[in-house]
Amino acid sequence: MQFILEDIAEAEVERRRGVYTPLTDTVRDLVDAVIRTEVGEDALAVAQRRIAEIVADLRSEQMDGPYGVRHTRENTGMAWGNAVIGVRNALAPPLNVEHVDDGVRCEFTLGAAYEGPPGCVHGGVCAMLLDHLLGNAASYESACYTGTITIRYLRPTRLGALTARAWVTEQTGRKRIARGTISDAEGVTCEAEGVFIVPRSALDAPPVRWSAG
Amino acid sequence: MQFILEDIAEAEVERRRGVYTPLTDTVRDLVDAVIRTEVGEDALAVAQRRIAEIVADLRSEQMDGPYGVRHTRENTGMAWGNAVIGVRNALAPPLNVEHVDDGVRCEFTLGAAYEGPPGCVHGGVCAMLLDHLLGNAASYESACYTGTITIRYLRPTRLGALTARAWVTEQTGRKRIARGTISDAEGVTCEAEGVFIVPRSALDAPPVRWSAG
Repeated sequence: MQFILEDIAEAEVERRRGVYTPLTDTVRDLVDAVIRTEVGEDALAVAQRRIAEIVADLRSEQMDGPYGVRHTRENTGMAWGNAVIGVRNALAPPLNVEHVDDGVRCEFTLGAAYEGPPGCVHGGVCAMLLDHLLGNAASYESACYTGTITIRYLRPTRLGALTARAWVTEQTGRKRIARGTISDAEGVTCEAEGVFIVPRSALDAPPVRWSAG
Repeated sequence: MQFILEDIAEAEVERRRGVYTPLTDTVRDLVDAVIRTEVGEDALAVAQRRIAEIVADLRSEQMDGPYGVRHTRENTGMAWGNAVIGVRNALAPPLNVEHVDDGVRCEFTLGAAYEGPPGCVHGGVCAMLLDHLLGNAASYESACYTGTITIRYLRPTRLGALTARAWVTEQTGRKRIARGTISDAEGVTCEAEGVFIVPRSALDAPPVRWSAG
């Protein structure tokens, strides 16, 4: 697994973020519109043709594989293709993870694209977000990977405004145990506990800051 | 939670699937292109403007909320907004779940949009897919919901062609225990075990067939 060093200044990171964020947000909007539209078949066919043209233009110059995980010399992380926090990934809600005293937290809104049971967040989406957040909390010193994670569903999570938190409860050698929750206005809807492992290779590397995707 | 009856024939379901599938596939292509493109800022701005126009056209007639979960009188499921299998949801890979003797299986390919660690599937994405598949296997008689699920990561899952399976190992009253795996060409990369609960209300309802999203 190869991390990529992009030797650019912090100001350039911010400038690029400002270019990609509105584009990705517009694609998120398109994903939602394709689920919810009620226009007729002819209009759908026109939309498809126009989207295919945009794809062809964007692909006229593109990288060979996935975006990868990049960082600057100052260790600012650019996981911009990441499925949960990626600035360039329309699948990501995205989570804007805030570091707080005892771990991490974030506020986010999930719409039609995250549905499982009617009107509710897919349980698998809750699992995905919790895996990311617990891993984020456990990576405070050095990057680490999920060993096992258990998610317990207390009740359905309605689509809409949500809050998630994660924090480390135990640390022994290269092992970290983290816990976390997703909550709506009425309280916790699901909770997770995970065991995370710091790879030997990461022990001496300085931590990368991922706070803004 | 309200399931929606769409009183349409099986042939009409297939016709609509044929309309939405290529549109959603093109949006999946766009999501990938936005992550991987290397065109300049002007071209990105043009793309964004054109996508926003398409969104406005699609939103000129649209349903108020999420798609919901629909089924026909013949109990063919249309979870077309679903985050994992939705025919109209570009976030879904989608999984095309096949029913086999001892449970369910599917083959699928995950690209740049599902990345976590460099070149690898986000662990949270594996958790999401396994939650869906185990729930699918456990719902063979009547719909059920995840109580708890544990995912164990054996090694990183490379982006690319993958297979997943899930099967029920135990059934007592309204409780089902299911297990499942995701594998690449070299074998299993992660495995899951979950406890699923059949709601009382679902006990007498005939099972809905979700096999094709």
